[in-house]
Amino acid sequence: MSSTGNPKVLIVMGSPSDTDVMREAKKVLQSLGVSCRMGIYSAHRTPGRAAALAESARDSGVVAIIAGAGMAAHLAGAMAARTILPVIGVPLAASLSGLDALLATVQMPPGFPVGTVAVGKGGAQNAAHFAAQIVALSDPEVADKITAWRRAKAAAAEAASDELEAED
Amino acid sequence: MSSTGNPKVLIVMGSPSDTDVMREAKKVLQSLGVSCRMGIYSAHRTPGRAAALAESARDSGVVAIIAGAGMAAHLAGAMAARTILPVIGVPLAASLSGLDALLATVQMPPGFPVGTVAVGKGGAQNAAHFAAQIVALSDPEVADKITAWRRAKAAAAEAASDELEAED
Amino acid sequence: MSSTGNPKVLIVMGSPSDTDVMREAKKVLQSLGVSCRMGIYSAHRTPGRAAALAESARDSGVVAIIAGAGMAAHLAGAMAARTILPVIGVPLAASLSGLDALLATVQMPPGFPVGTVAVGKGGAQNAAHFAAQIVALSDPEVADKITAWRRAKAAAAEAASDELEAED
Amino acid sequence: MSSTGNPKVLIVMGSPSDTDVMREAKKVLQSLGVSCRMGIYSAHRTPGRAAALAESARDSGVVAIIAGAGMAAHLAGAMAARTILPVIGVPLAASLSGLDALLATVQMPPGFPVGTVAVGKGGAQNAAHFAAQIVALSDPEVADKITAWRRAKAAAAEAASDELEAED
Amino acid sequence: MSSTGNPKVLIVMGSPSDTDVMREAKKVLQSLGVSCRMGIYSAHRTPGRAAALAESARDSGVVAIIAGAGMAAHLAGAMAARTILPVIGVPLAASLSGLDALLATVQMPPGFPVGTVAVGKGGAQNAAHFAAQIVALSDPEVADKITAWRRAKAAAAEAASDELEAED
Amino acid sequence: MSSTGNPKVLIVMGSPSDTDVMREAKKVLQSLGVSCRMGIYSAHRTPGRAAALAESARDSGVVAIIAGAGMAAHLAGAMAARTILPVIGVPLAASLSGLDALLATVQMPPGFPVGTVAVGKGGAQNAAHFAAQIVALSDPEVADKITAWRRAKAAAAEAASDELEAED
Amino acid sequence: MSSTGNPKVLIVMGSPSDTDVMREAKKVLQSLGVSCRMGIYSAHRTPGRAAALAESARDSGVVAIIAGAGMAAHLAGAMAARTILPVIGVPLAASLSGLDALLATVQMPPGFPVGTVAVGKGGAQNAAHFAAQIVALSDPEVADKITAWRRAKAAAAEAASDELEAED
Amino acid sequence: MSSTGNPKVLIVMGSPSDTDVMREAKKVLQSLGVSCRMGIYSAHRTPGRAAALAESARDSGVVAIIAGAGMAAHLAGAMAARTILPVIGVPLAASLSGLDALLATVQMPPGFPVGTVAVGKGGAQNAAHFAAQIVALSDPEVADKITAWRRAKAAAAEAASDELEAED
Repeated sequence: MSSTGNPKVLIVMGSPSDTDVMREAKKVLQSLGVSCRMGIYSAHRTPGRAAALAESARDSGVVAIIAGAGMAAHLAGAMAARTILPVIGVPLAASLSGLDALLATVQMPPGFPVGTVAVGKGGAQNAAHFAAQIVALSDPEVADKITAWRRAKAAAAEAASDELEAED
Repeated sequence: MSSTGNPKVLIVMGSPSDTDVMREAKKVLQSLGVSCRMGIYSAHRTPGRAAALAESARDSGVVAIIAGAGMAAHLAGAMAARTILPVIGVPLAASLSGLDALLATVQMPPGFPVGTVAVGKGGAQNAAHFAAQIVALSDPEVADKITAWRRAKAAAAEAASDELEAED
Repeated sequence: MSSTGNPKVLIVMGSPSDTDVMREAKKVLQSLGVSCRMGIYSAHRTPGRAAALAESARDSGVVAIIAGAGMAAHLAGAMAARTILPVIGVPLAASLSGLDALLATVQMPPGFPVGTVAVGKGGAQNAAHFAAQIVALSDPEVADKITAWRRAKAAAAEAASDELEAED
Repeated sequence: MSSTGNPKVLIVMGSPSDTDVMREAKKVLQSLGVSCRMGIYSAHRTPGRAAALAESARDSGVVAIIAGAGMAAHLAGAMAARTILPVIGVPLAASLSGLDALLATVQMPPGFPVGTVAVGKGGAQNAAHFAAQIVALSDPEVADKITAWRRAKAAAAEAASDELEAED
Repeated sequence: MSSTGNPKVLIVMGSPSDTDVMREAKKVLQSLGVSCRMGIYSAHRTPGRAAALAESARDSGVVAIIAGAGMAAHLAGAMAARTILPVIGVPLAASLSGLDALLATVQMPPGFPVGTVAVGKGGAQNAAHFAAQIVALSDPEVADKITAWRRAKAAAAEAASDELEAED
Repeated sequence: MSSTGNPKVLIVMGSPSDTDVMREAKKVLQSLGVSCRMGIYSAHRTPGRAAALAESARDSGVVAIIAGAGMAAHLAGAMAARTILPVIGVPLAASLSGLDALLATVQMPPGFPVGTVAVGKGGAQNAAHFAAQIVALSDPEVADKITAWRRAKAAAAEAASDELEAED
Repeated sequence: MSSTGNPKVLIVMGSPSDTDVMREAKKVLQSLGVSCRMGIYSAHRTPGRAAALAESARDSGVVAIIAGAGMAAHLAGAMAARTILPVIGVPLAASLSGLDALLATVQMPPGFPVGTVAVGKGGAQNAAHFAAQIVALSDPEVADKITAWRRAKAAAAEAASDELEAED
Repeated sequence: MSSTGNPKVLIVMGSPSDTDVMREAKKVLQSLGVSCRMGIYSAHRTPGRAAALAESARDSGVVAIIAGAGMAAHLAGAMAARTILPVIGVPLAASLSGLDALLATVQMPPGFPVGTVAVGKGGAQNAAHFAAQIVALSDPEVADKITAWRRAKAAAAEAASDELEAED
């Protein structure tokens, strides 16, 4: 993963088949003005490459790593073992409705946390929101965009509610 | 929760009975040189007070909120709905081994993430580590303390391993 | 949610995508002669609006609130924290077959009950039946309609049974 | 179960071994000024007696039935089949952490709802709160007592929070 | 359910929507030469009718009752409470993959057993096999048919195996 | 297992550590006047011996086999594969609360049913009741004893209920 | 299963319907240069044949047995009871997402291990990889093929990653 | 982990607190005449050291690696990613009854199998039996010891059975 452009957030996933779900994270980050880069880094097929990425991320200006994986989802934990950057885990529903990936991601031992979000697409989006909230701690523009997004969502919910109430 | 001392991290929990587990988070934060404050803020018994805390936290200099709750654990989500600060959720094992609290904490809808950690004491410790990792993004001293802690843990594991191998 | 017509029952849901399932509750209430109103009130996107609705519902003549939500389903609990009206929770199957929503809805802490019904459409119907049974405590016409509905269902089951026995 | 004193709420349970947990419901109801009566009515050992109780309850002035049972917890459903009064189910943790009782209680078919609360003691208390909230619809004194109880709980939580914050 | 023809086995189910799955039981019984009759008897919609059937079954010559139901599957248990005939329960997968129905069927309290079989169609078939095995205790012709069925199945498996081994 | 005394029911278990739980089945059978014999027959440690027992049981006058096992509980299924007698499975809670044993016992493939009862001691008792109900099909004395036992249980429940209602 | 060609690995499954999934194991073994043979051997329909296969496998030069089964998956355990060859179990997702088969396969009692792999197709592939790794202990050519396969997979992941990163 | 004595099997675990359970594996291996060595190698605290061990194990004569870990049990998978030796995973019950560790161990992606055994002590013993069965492929003495152990176990089961049958 080249560091061209100094992305603030890395989005890694264990397999090419995870791309569709994880691209949701990229879309959210882009909409919130947070630079990011996506790549495939497997804890099992390319463990050395994944370790190297985690170990170099902090020095290249990254502030958070989003890792999505399914089944015995070890990727987020493998990154967390090699960096002190916040690692955000997205459990993917490859089998057993994603319960396997959720438990394999969230139940990390003391000292090596993975901040875990919901299973699947909504989780990928939330990982991006969470990363953006970390970026927003030092970037008021991102903070404003998050706040604006929330206001728009609230307004949309109210409008949908009005429409629903007007029914019948 | 007064803002005296400008704590970097708030540790909130739903009930006085959660104090023992959540104090683990405070211990870790103190050992890593991160200021914090603990309080009891229930999503159900004192929802207005919890909302007010969440809404004012960012302006008072807080950078992360740790929320621990059991059963239908809504506290972390209730905080996340009212702030754009990163909220870290600790599921507590009040019943059903904590699976209820885990799912109620992690499965947040898009836009309102809770970075969830493991169930129980280890989770409370990890919430603190995760918060410290966020603080470390802008505080090299905390980063150094985390790195030192990890080195010490690795050395202790190696020593324990040597002792075990010497057995027979 | 305007109070025009003084609805007896409020049906709230967390997201526009829940409308199809929750409309089942409205259909049942209408068939039993119980006035109701539906709206979208999110515990996370519009927490203040949801709180305001819950706090004002009792004074506007509402006797029960039905709340449907999926995943980390906090809506019913958020309403229950702000009103002493009976709140009936419908867990929706957005992921993990709805087990997440079920546990997040039913496992409420002491003093803030949510009367929880089955996951999904059948649950939405049952929430309406339950609300109607509460209304029926003081409204004999509704009681008669419930009783008539049950008799009709029993007769239909008997007829279907007769047909089945007559087979082959 | 004699109707002496016209209890507003019936508390039934499947087995004498459930008495300790279900007495929690009685304590809450008494503290909120709601008359009640407890009895053992098994869906399997004394099905006719349970059916008779359910069928006669409404005419004797009862407004809600609380039913606690463990394992394949059928009692609440068996009552719900024989009355149009609101039936509140308390799943008891006799095995499998109470997950069996929870699912057997909550997953009722359309038309025969059981308003289900949390597993175990907290659930028994919440069943009583829920029943009291129904009674409060037509009894302002009970409504006042519930409100007062909630205020006291909130004050106690605040006091505990202050104490915790004052620590160290 | 008329007793014409003195069926040996009753097949009851809670809802017309269960007919397709439960007809599997009828097919198996017919193929094994065991007379049976199917009907819809709901523990909740027609509890009195279900109770009456259970109570009269033994005197009309029935030797086993097969009961299929989904969700909070109480039907088998409700029958078991009213007869000392062996009751065989088939959990149907209406929601939560049928785990709810499985637990609600199998976890019966002491003295009122339901012999439970697998979830869904395979379970319906096995309920019939189990009932036939009971009939076979006193009917050598049925025993011979079961044995012949098993031999045919074994032969078919061997043939399929030979074909598979011959591949490639 | 010698056939001395021609026991009607065999009680087998996979391990000596299962004896305490399975002895509950023996106690129930003895109280209901049904002859039985207990033995340890492991599907894994002594598969040939278990197979031989299953294959010879029917000819020696046995009418039902009760098999208790924990974890990957194969014993009941292994017996069911070798006999057309009804096999009743008792899942034992050696780990995972017995959910593993329950699923491994009940989810049998078509044609080889195991009539499964509840997990643990209550299940062992119910296996005996179920076996006695099968014996009772051709033995009126056993039928009378079951009926008497049920009446006594009902009376005891009523007495306990009266005592509870008389409280305070 | 004839021993023509002296296959190193046996692939057995409980039912013809498992063929599609288990053929994945054959494909992997063939690609890694490990001879194998597939057959249908049911723990319940053809227990004697399955036992005979297990008992004779070691003498015919087999070094590992792969057994796939669904639901109450006993086949791997039944083989493990009759041979000291390594037995590798593949849980198949016939119901309950395969959780039943997973627990029935993996939770074997001490002394009779089944090395269990993931549920479904990926598990069938992994069973083959695991068997090949055992073969590779004494066959450097197979070891080389495994290593080459892993290198190719790593290269493919890197290429896919590069492509993903190149996406804007 | 020094290679003194050329152990055939490595037993690694993630934490010193796992020692008691994993020592069961060592006891079994010693009793079967298989040399082994135990050590603490954490996938998160000492990932480099764990990777180095896995990468060097094959060349130092090891034939199987047993890895025990709890919660988000990544250790076995981390080893499997770095060696083509058979890796045997033991899920430890640190929380959620070990279901988290079981899923995190067994659900490995294609090409990187972990042969998983039961949760806890029995699993640790079975991991050792499984490793010994692999060793036995090329070591007739170990094969004889396994066979003798099985015979002794069978004899003990028979003796226990005789004693039980002789009771009363």
